[in-house]
Amino acid sequence: MSEHTVIFQPSGRRGKIKEGETLLEAARSLGVEIESICGEKKTCGKCKVQVEEGFFEKYGVDSKMSNLTGWTPDEDRMLSSAEKENKYRLSCLAHVQGELLVFVPEESRGGQQVVRKKAGKLKYKPDPALEIFYIEMSAPSLHDPEDDFLRVAKALKEKHGREVGKIDIYCLKTMADTLRKAKWKVTVFVWNDQVVRVVPGEVEKYYGIAVDIGTTTVAAYLTDMKTGRAVAVDSKMNPQVIYGEDVMSRITYAMQNPGVGLEKMNAAILKALNELIGSLVEEIGVTRDDILEMTLVCNTAMHHILLGLNPEHVGVAPFPTAMAPAMDIKARDMGLDINKSGNIHILANEAGFVGADNCGVLIAEEPYNSEETVLVIDIGTNGELLCGSKKLGVVSCSVATGPALEGAQIKFGMRAAPGAIEKVEIDSETLEPRYKVIGKTDWHTHIHEIDAKGICGSGIIDVVAELFRTGIIDRGGRFSKHAPTKRLVKDPDTGQMEYILAYEPETSIGKNISITQGDVRAIQLAKGSIYSGAVIMMKRLGIDKLDKVILAGAFGSHLNQFSCMFMGMFPDVDIKNVYAVGNAAGDGARLVLINRDKRREADEMARKVEYLELTVYENFERVFMEAMQFPHMTDSFPSIQHVLDEIPNWKKIAKEKNA
Amino acid sequence: MSEHTVIFQPSGRRGKIKEGETLLEAARSLGVEIESICGEKKTCGKCKVQVEEGFFEKYGVDSKMSNLTGWTPDEDRMLSSAEKENKYRLSCLAHVQGELLVFVPEESRGGQQVVRKKAGKLKYKPDPALEIFYIEMSAPSLHDPEDDFLRVAKALKEKHGREVGKIDIYCLKTMADTLRKAKWKVTVFVWNDQVVRVVPGEVEKYYGIAVDIGTTTVAAYLTDMKTGRAVAVDSKMNPQVIYGEDVMSRITYAMQNPGVGLEKMNAAILKALNELIGSLVEEIGVTRDDILEMTLVCNTAMHHILLGLNPEHVGVAPFPTAMAPAMDIKARDMGLDINKSGNIHILANEAGFVGADNCGVLIAEEPYNSEETVLVIDIGTNGELLCGSKKLGVVSCSVATGPALEGAQIKFGMRAAPGAIEKVEIDSETLEPRYKVIGKTDWHTHIHEIDAKGICGSGIIDVVAELFRTGIIDRGGRFSKHAPTKRLVKDPDTGQMEYILAYEPETSIGKNISITQGDVRAIQLAKGSIYSGAVIMMKRLGIDKLDKVILAGAFGSHLNQFSCMFMGMFPDVDIKNVYAVGNAAGDGARLVLINRDKRREADEMARKVEYLELTVYENFERVFMEAMQFPHMTDSFPSIQHVLDEIPNWKKIAKEKNA
Repeated sequence: MSEHTVIFQPSGRRGKIKEGETLLEAARSLGVEIESICGEKKTCGKCKVQVEEGFFEKYGVDSKMSNLTGWTPDEDRMLSSAEKENKYRLSCLAHVQGELLVFVPEESRGGQQVVRKKAGKLKYKPDPALEIFYIEMSAPSLHDPEDDFLRVAKALKEKHGREVGKIDIYCLKTMADTLRKAKWKVTVFVWNDQVVRVVPGEVEKYYGIAVDIGTTTVAAYLTDMKTGRAVAVDSKMNPQVIYGEDVMSRITYAMQNPGVGLEKMNAAILKALNELIGSLVEEIGVTRDDILEMTLVCNTAMHHILLGLNPEHVGVAPFPTAMAPAMDIKARDMGLDINKSGNIHILANEAGFVGADNCGVLIAEEPYNSEETVLVIDIGTNGELLCGSKKLGVVSCSVATGPALEGAQIKFGMRAAPGAIEKVEIDSETLEPRYKVIGKTDWHTHIHEIDAKGICGSGIIDVVAELFRTGIIDRGGRFSKHAPTKRLVKDPDTGQMEYILAYEPETSIGKNISITQGDVRAIQLAKGSIYSGAVIMMKRLGIDKLDKVILAGAFGSHLNQFSCMFMGMFPDVDIKNVYAVGNAAGDGARLVLINRDKRREADEMARKVEYLELTVYENFERVFMEAMQFPHMTDSFPSIQHVLDEIPNWKKIAKEKNA
Repeated sequence: MSEHTVIFQPSGRRGKIKEGETLLEAARSLGVEIESICGEKKTCGKCKVQVEEGFFEKYGVDSKMSNLTGWTPDEDRMLSSAEKENKYRLSCLAHVQGELLVFVPEESRGGQQVVRKKAGKLKYKPDPALEIFYIEMSAPSLHDPEDDFLRVAKALKEKHGREVGKIDIYCLKTMADTLRKAKWKVTVFVWNDQVVRVVPGEVEKYYGIAVDIGTTTVAAYLTDMKTGRAVAVDSKMNPQVIYGEDVMSRITYAMQNPGVGLEKMNAAILKALNELIGSLVEEIGVTRDDILEMTLVCNTAMHHILLGLNPEHVGVAPFPTAMAPAMDIKARDMGLDINKSGNIHILANEAGFVGADNCGVLIAEEPYNSEETVLVIDIGTNGELLCGSKKLGVVSCSVATGPALEGAQIKFGMRAAPGAIEKVEIDSETLEPRYKVIGKTDWHTHIHEIDAKGICGSGIIDVVAELFRTGIIDRGGRFSKHAPTKRLVKDPDTGQMEYILAYEPETSIGKNISITQGDVRAIQLAKGSIYSGAVIMMKRLGIDKLDKVILAGAFGSHLNQFSCMFMGMFPDVDIKNVYAVGNAAGDGARLVLINRDKRREADEMARKVEYLELTVYENFERVFMEAMQFPHMTDSFPSIQHVLDEIPNWKKIAKEKNA
């Protein structure tokens, strides 16, 4: 089969590509990131590229002899006539047939998301499953010829009261020589009833690593096992992003590429984890061999891909996972490059889409110990909700928010990367917006330097809340044709109304950035699904009022809580009792790393939480339709009436809370 | 570094050999087996080869320019002047410096030992640690979205009352698809609390493999786990033999070749085991993947080499093993090619040189359940003894028999391979011998076809016993110069007396086969060490009479029990109560494979047996010196006086017992 040179601009990456590969596949193989939200289902239209050379060069549009295969009906539908004229193609639909020079426009480029995962202080005392003990022994003699292992076991018992019955084979391979070299004075690493490492002399400090594998971001916390403190933190993009932006597209990718798809994504995440481990141990001056325990949280799809399990079934109702309980897997069996005898502890999946990450949230926030009734919302591509209290017990559910809240399926949506509009306010009088762009220190007021490229999740939530607050959209989410602002226009291509947030001269993409009627609908679906989940859970618990709402997840920390509440993302609650807790899933991973009671608690509570499958709830559709509406100001939010009464004041509160 | 072509005859094997390698190393790398009993310690003189071309060709004996390095003092000592004249060298001492044609004389060729390990019927009811269960489940639904694992666990509990909490990661990788393909009707393999395999439909039969890794022979028993029957048996030489004939030479080899020595021997035994597994599963028409449990017994040195553990320490007093308790290791971690989720169970080492093989003997013979006082002798390169009863408890010890009983360190000793003299009788009147050669159906009487090549262990024991019985040697083991036989001669080279068992025309090695004074001494040392071990154990137990003696080991089955007793290998006992039980260690491996109570019993009893370190016993040396003597006819064996009274009669009994 012949190969052709393909070059991507502006990165300049080039290489030989096999005839018949799509431009998207070519880009991936050359390390060029192109947005692909739908996982090549030909529905998102995000993977646009402009063909600079090789476009039907020789024989015209329909010829099989051109350097790219011809138009497809999907492209006809998703590309505007202007784009077609400018030689745009969807890279997932155009197949290489000859040499090409391709330009990836900024709006299609996969950007490095801004990763902000801090490690707070954990309130639990360290008592890790992995322990170390210093022991001294006498050497074997003819009168005491006992084997090395029982000699070590006896010393552990006598000096520390610790019983062991096993030893990992890889540890055993070097133990005899270590004991003799160290003159029988060693530090022993014990994991459960197993000796996993023996090192000469007395070791004071030792470390473990807790990891939160998100769909988009992977965060790793290297933790001092004696103090429980995260002494080094690092994070990176989940490299699986190039195979699909959300879990469903990755599941689709695995299904459409049997064998290789799963294998590639599995290899990608393992590589990323091994790189993170490498940079963390280097940062504090230890080695990979010094790490003998890792804990992992992730959603069910990430869980399956990480373990090399077919993720197909978790993508189809009723979304059964292969394995709910927590697992302990030897590092060597997972391909993770720490000590071969090291253990990887993966927290329990709760059920369906409620994965180990939610189990992390569960034990970090402990709703089952709360005197108050609390709703925990972990917002991501899927929302996972927990609701309950010590008295009521805890229920969980998963809601399909879709990727809108993270900026996907939004016309100008993007990840929280430089150039993204992340905060928006609309003036109640003039209906003019002001916005803040990631990577800029100041608010953008149409005066400063211009580089808006799109809108990320927090920006979208802000703008929709503001459009509603200022009356530009009504309770049903429809644009009011009579709103007195010239920013409200009709898209000539689609006939849809849209609100122009940034005019073309203020952007770096050569066109207006706007919020369309479709965007508003997508946000309504997302917030409605969370709200309806909360309502059904409250019904199940027999309550009609929440005491507290916790927004978990790095994403949740960046939301304007007032915007969320104002647009009706969750039921009424005193805004003072709405908290953003950051990466609670990561906190959970750290807790089980340093405290074995928490580990037991995680396994136990994951099973005790009652999972509600919302779609089988009899009134689900009615509840959901109602939840999609924006709220009545007065009826829906008794708790914040005093705030709403004075508009400038709630802004002040919101600002303080989101500073 | 330059390479030279080296050819070995009569096999005709040839290849390029790096300059500086010894002829023995060259032979190994070309797959030519040369006897090497001492493990290249330059003491055995067994690795003789005749150099046909390239012998000091160009520049004489001492030249560094010849095709072999020059004489060594060790060769001067160990080669006769005739051998030197005929260009014999010791292959471990001559280094390649140019092209060579080398002849390996028959006496130096490593022969395939005759492997005779049969599998008898075990008396325990199968109740294996690895179980299978057929279950049927309903598919997940929105009302019952439970994960696959808990669904399987629930079905196991409900239908079979069996609880599981874990699943092996490699099993999990394919389970989801298997369950769906099989429409939720599957057979589940459960090992302890762990699901290790899921296959579609109902499986009736399943198998495990028990293996006895001897220093010389590896025997494997593929066992039907439901009936407990060994349905296929295979065995092969332990390929480590080329690195040394006994455990000490292999330990020495590992020490003298740090890193690579252990690695090579480890790879060799794993390869042999994987070949055995392959031929066994093929024989009954299953696959490697169908095997999920193996049990192993072996001595402590084999144990360490098999697991890749440095065997150095088990070779030096006080011989501490790295690990005494039984181990369970995943097949994938050992490099054994069965199902990746399969388990390898290695029985407990008792202490020092008393390894897992003796643990196998222990639970097969159960002296701890015996109403009679029993002595169990597992004769090999090392003898391992057990002594005791239900009432007295059980003590064990290891005795350094040396390799003499297996034919090594005996002038014409060889393994029990074709050409070996295996049975000997000497006529009381004429003092003429008759003998039986392995590979011949009839007794050799100097009339039939001639092909004796050497003497194997059972033959040596016979001949020494017969020499003593007929008065050719006295109680001290000295040849009686006045014995009326022309077969008693003096070796002109050494001045030692020897008894010619076969004259040169009757042999295939071109010389007389004789028993030397040194050979008799070696056998005295061996039998004396066993006898003294027995005596000390009996003292420790406070008894002066045995009820029963059990000779364990394939080797033990081939011994003339009367010869053993007659020469004083063990204390007096009624000859009717001397039993050969065959491969009891292998029986032990099979028992723990099919019965989990026996597995628990093995762990427990291995710890309960009291190990006696003979060398620290205060009268050890005196006891040993006495035990080396041949016994007083009348004083030592009251139990067989009635037999000894009529010489022809005891021969008849011996013949019946050893038929």
